[in-house]
Amino acid sequence: MAETGEPVAVVLLSGGLDSMVSAALAREQGFALHALTIDYGQRHRRELDAARRIAAELGAARHVELALDLRKFGGSALTDDVDVPKEGVGEAIPVTYVPARNLVFLSLTTAFAESGGARDIFIGVNALDYSGYPDCRPEFITSFAHTASLGTKIGVEDGPIVIHAPLQYMSKADIAREADRLGLDTGMSWSCYDPRADGLPCGACDSCRLRRKGFAEAGLEDGLRYPYDIPPA
Amino acid sequence: MAETGEPVAVVLLSGGLDSMVSAALAREQGFALHALTIDYGQRHRRELDAARRIAAELGAARHVELALDLRKFGGSALTDDVDVPKEGVGEAIPVTYVPARNLVFLSLTTAFAESGGARDIFIGVNALDYSGYPDCRPEFITSFAHTASLGTKIGVEDGPIVIHAPLQYMSKADIAREADRLGLDTGMSWSCYDPRADGLPCGACDSCRLRRKGFAEAGLEDGLRYPYDIPPA
Repeated sequence: MAETGEPVAVVLLSGGLDSMVSAALAREQGFALHALTIDYGQRHRRELDAARRIAAELGAARHVELALDLRKFGGSALTDDVDVPKEGVGEAIPVTYVPARNLVFLSLTTAFAESGGARDIFIGVNALDYSGYPDCRPEFITSFAHTASLGTKIGVEDGPIVIHAPLQYMSKADIAREADRLGLDTGMSWSCYDPRADGLPCGACDSCRLRRKGFAEAGLEDGLRYPYDIPPA
Repeated sequence: MAETGEPVAVVLLSGGLDSMVSAALAREQGFALHALTIDYGQRHRRELDAARRIAAELGAARHVELALDLRKFGGSALTDDVDVPKEGVGEAIPVTYVPARNLVFLSLTTAFAESGGARDIFIGVNALDYSGYPDCRPEFITSFAHTASLGTKIGVEDGPIVIHAPLQYMSKADIAREADRLGLDTGMSWSCYDPRADGLPCGACDSCRLRRKGFAEAGLEDGLRYPYDIPPA
């Protein structure tokens, strides 16, 4: 890890806007980036291309793509042949919830971090403008850090695993502003759960709605283009 | 899950003796078994065959083998091209430790359980005759259950995720006796980290040493055959 003299942070890089901003904040804090992208059979494959572009753009020292076929378990509209809902963001946990996704992803990120001697992990979860997923809540993130510190050699011998969730208390508008402040090309990121055949984001799934609303509230233009025939958020 | 009327438990089935006994105890407690085996690129591929045989023998209703290439992270003698130590069981955490393995495996098991509507998970860890891995300790298992309950829809809506670790406080001799009581053919399981070219267990790695010592102390014969030219444990 000492090649550059900078401490290493492992960033969970999905390719979405939040993970891009979270990774850029890690870099801003002086960490060398080891990026981890998990290919879990998500229907929105465009995310993976986005992750590659972002890792290169942010100068990640390492980028590992790990295949994990969560479709073998079934149970989510993001991996199975189930319609992605387009009716707007509701109160209940939606069908796009992937069982235990952040638990699995943070565990893999911890394994990657420990393998490289790092204890700092960045994840782009946020608990405000989110889809109601239980694994985005602060109490889960805090509890995970404690568990990971107990269950790893590095946690026991070197000090606690630190989960940085810098977007935790940001709204999507805050995140859009943060992307702007950091000078990020948001067009490199991808959020849509259900891309159209023409390669444009659908504009109507929860993820598109939250993103568009955020940029609109911040009064900023999203680098990502939406089809003009979709009604505004 | 209601096909048989029995509640479902997900059992983490490595193919080792401990996971076999743990799964058999789940069945004895009246659970229908959904077995999960993780192919993480371990050098001891014989474990995977053993897991298949055990799942069939115990009548598992489902058995998923999930590929997860932890070699991409590096950092362990169990997945990398590093010599497995044969000098005996020491005090420190050994090089056979796989970074965050049980954290990752329990997270995947939780995802599998939640996908099938189950909250009961069985894992064969034990904290007595073990190799000094931090992720076998009771405080880790307890903390994990709490984290998993916070980070899943099923944990939030239906009730806590329950991690059963029935071998937690057993010695290897206790586990050998338990296998005997349950009428298990221990020859179906596989523990060796470094199988010989002739297909026999090495008899000298930590895992072989602990297993042989356990059967010897219990005064029981292991169904698994060792090469006669290996010095006794």
